[in-house]
Amino acid sequence: MEFQTSSNIPNAKTDHSKISMHIPDSSHPRVIIVGGGFGGIEIVKALKNAPYQVVLFDRHNYHTFQPLLYQVATAGLEPDSIASPLRRIFKGQKDFYFRMADVIKIFPEEKCIHTTIGNLKYDYLILATGSKTNYYGMKEIQENAMPMKQVPQALNIRSKILQNYENALLSNDELELNSLIDIVIVGGGPTGVELAGAMSELRRSVLPKDFPEHDFSKMDIYLLEAGPRLLAGMSDHAGKKSLEYLQKFGVQVKLNTAVKSYDGLKVKLGDGSEIVSQTVIWAAGVTGNLIEGLKPEAVKGGRYLVDDYNKVMGYDNIFAVGDTAAMLAADRPRGHAMVAQVAIQQGKNVAKNLKLKVHKKPWKKFSYYDKGSMATVGRNKAVVDFPKFSIAGMFAWFIWMFVHLLFLIGFRNKIATLINWVWNYFTFDRANRLIIRPWRKNNTYENKE
Amino acid sequence: MEFQTSSNIPNAKTDHSKISMHIPDSSHPRVIIVGGGFGGIEIVKALKNAPYQVVLFDRHNYHTFQPLLYQVATAGLEPDSIASPLRRIFKGQKDFYFRMADVIKIFPEEKCIHTTIGNLKYDYLILATGSKTNYYGMKEIQENAMPMKQVPQALNIRSKILQNYENALLSNDELELNSLIDIVIVGGGPTGVELAGAMSELRRSVLPKDFPEHDFSKMDIYLLEAGPRLLAGMSDHAGKKSLEYLQKFGVQVKLNTAVKSYDGLKVKLGDGSEIVSQTVIWAAGVTGNLIEGLKPEAVKGGRYLVDDYNKVMGYDNIFAVGDTAAMLAADRPRGHAMVAQVAIQQGKNVAKNLKLKVHKKPWKKFSYYDKGSMATVGRNKAVVDFPKFSIAGMFAWFIWMFVHLLFLIGFRNKIATLINWVWNYFTFDRANRLIIRPWRKNNTYENKE
Repeated sequence: MEFQTSSNIPNAKTDHSKISMHIPDSSHPRVIIVGGGFGGIEIVKALKNAPYQVVLFDRHNYHTFQPLLYQVATAGLEPDSIASPLRRIFKGQKDFYFRMADVIKIFPEEKCIHTTIGNLKYDYLILATGSKTNYYGMKEIQENAMPMKQVPQALNIRSKILQNYENALLSNDELELNSLIDIVIVGGGPTGVELAGAMSELRRSVLPKDFPEHDFSKMDIYLLEAGPRLLAGMSDHAGKKSLEYLQKFGVQVKLNTAVKSYDGLKVKLGDGSEIVSQTVIWAAGVTGNLIEGLKPEAVKGGRYLVDDYNKVMGYDNIFAVGDTAAMLAADRPRGHAMVAQVAIQQGKNVAKNLKLKVHKKPWKKFSYYDKGSMATVGRNKAVVDFPKFSIAGMFAWFIWMFVHLLFLIGFRNKIATLINWVWNYFTFDRANRLIIRPWRKNNTYENKE
Repeated sequence: MEFQTSSNIPNAKTDHSKISMHIPDSSHPRVIIVGGGFGGIEIVKALKNAPYQVVLFDRHNYHTFQPLLYQVATAGLEPDSIASPLRRIFKGQKDFYFRMADVIKIFPEEKCIHTTIGNLKYDYLILATGSKTNYYGMKEIQENAMPMKQVPQALNIRSKILQNYENALLSNDELELNSLIDIVIVGGGPTGVELAGAMSELRRSVLPKDFPEHDFSKMDIYLLEAGPRLLAGMSDHAGKKSLEYLQKFGVQVKLNTAVKSYDGLKVKLGDGSEIVSQTVIWAAGVTGNLIEGLKPEAVKGGRYLVDDYNKVMGYDNIFAVGDTAAMLAADRPRGHAMVAQVAIQQGKNVAKNLKLKVHKKPWKKFSYYDKGSMATVGRNKAVVDFPKFSIAGMFAWFIWMFVHLLFLIGFRNKIATLINWVWNYFTFDRANRLIIRPWRKNNTYENKE
């Protein structure tokens, strides 16, 4: 089935007319999945050998294991270790097609999506687009702070910190020097806590060896959280323990502290005080990645409203899973947590229902099985919430490592990550300290010889 | 000793006046080394504990192991495995300073260099700046072909090839399709031969699994060499064997074939024929990286003329080593080969002479000890020239791997590379297939969320 352009569906935004997606006709219904994150790849896997043609879109050619992104940002891991080429994951899968493109708009009446490489009709559309950094409308912060949701962004953070330390060697100005060596992390969720912990390890074991000329007692690491506690999505015990660990590591944790503005140099806080830093990492919130074209009633709080089968409200053949879906209930007025496990389980359930449909069997409602949650703070220190109890410390840290290795995709990535971790642990080193993508304001990169 | 700005030395090109290099005064003479390649790092290492202050400049914060760059370009290795942060290599070395900057001009009268971060005086200056891609004045080729001398350039090649294969899925045009999937490598030296071999492995084992929709019998890999043989710097045996291996791997090797022009699509050859390809890798030659400021008589054929002590002609306290130095003699009218071994041995000799100077002992002339040379063509196939004889095949391939692992800097990099190689060998896979730096014309990179 070649795409047909209906009157109100635009042609692909491209400068030559010969483009076509080349998705062949199939005797089976076509399922289009948008996004190769945790939810998307579960669906593709589960539909292997099912009587559906599966087409996956992603703007990258790889799946990112986001829970370890902070280790790429802090020079502990290579990007190749935590990302897997999508084509490799689905190698040999029949009637499956991957296309690297952005999906720009949905035309639900025509059952068609409009992408950067053309239009394509679907029988079922599954939105697994994940989430993006939420700046809550604060443009200045968006321009000046660094997000960390994608591999290139993590590499930007790594490069910027290392560049700042090189530049700090040249400064005669106390204020400028402090702005170069101090680091501010906004948001006390798992990303913020894990980043702050990893930064404190860099300060203790790695940077002083690289830069004996700097006085690292002057390096401040701030973790700012607007709410009254850390790891709000986890247990009280986890919140308290992570705070205790971070304070022990010398991180300046400021609770009940909202960020009002950031101009690239000065972070203005809710109480009127200021912190000076050229490195602000914004991990204060995320919002669903929405695609234009669905009715306004289908969206609430930046996510697609879905029923218990993950069907988007008002549509029979459009689903949303994971971060981008809000499955509301009395006990969860804002939907499920935006975590990998929800996306994985919802993806599996949608795929299962599509398979049940083939046999005309009744569909199964989604029910979340909470396997627990966890965050690592640093060397030998993690917090783990099991459904019934919580632990913290070295044993939790081992569980954290074991679970992350287990879920990391691909045997090669597991080995590479394990070796890096063993190396980092025993040498107190972080070897991946290359400034490969020199960071520039507005995120452009220039190459020269 | 803070730098003093003499009347004709410009101020550092910077927008704020507070900049200073902060290289402290020393009771010892200052040796400035420009370039952290094979030559530069040998000198810094050899001067450890010698009565000299050592300052190293490089535009990157890492040393690149160039012989394995082609494996980064062909998704076999991660950049972090073949590059070592320079600060890490010299960790703990006393009276040593590294500065990440470009050196723009030399003022030999004032014994001063002008850099992007300010000016600095030297007692001895050692130019270990290596070489850059030589386009022989052909601007159009420089604009459209891809060089491979640096890590970012190798990543550009990797990204571009993978992007082309994604784009080729969208093409309806036979000519465009061919231009996207065919690859042209110009230059039959070690870089060209190794790249062509690695590309043929991608074509045989990796790309067909990723892109079952493409017909890989249509993918052509061209290796173009202007001279009558491959590996001109090695033995006849090595040249013949590498040609035999490449032809066996299905690489279209064209000898005596000069490239006249390349407009981004059509490669025009000396005999008037054309090859159509959007991917042309230019490995046809290099020329010394020269810095402005020395007398014209000190330069010949793009390299600094040096005497038997690597002293640049006409100067008593300026040295040049490696690719950028031409040490002429009757039996080598164009100087030593531009290979790592020459740079390493010259670097060691210069450092040794500087140490002899302390004890007022006579200096030693440089004498090159040829340890042999080698190139790998592909799986189980390499050519190795020992000083007295040559071998080719599987045993040569093992020697090649052993020697490269041995010379790779850092235990961690050795392990990471070995594991990748073992993995690649047994799985016929190349795992590092991420398009992390989407390639754009004029080498700019943009990031978006």
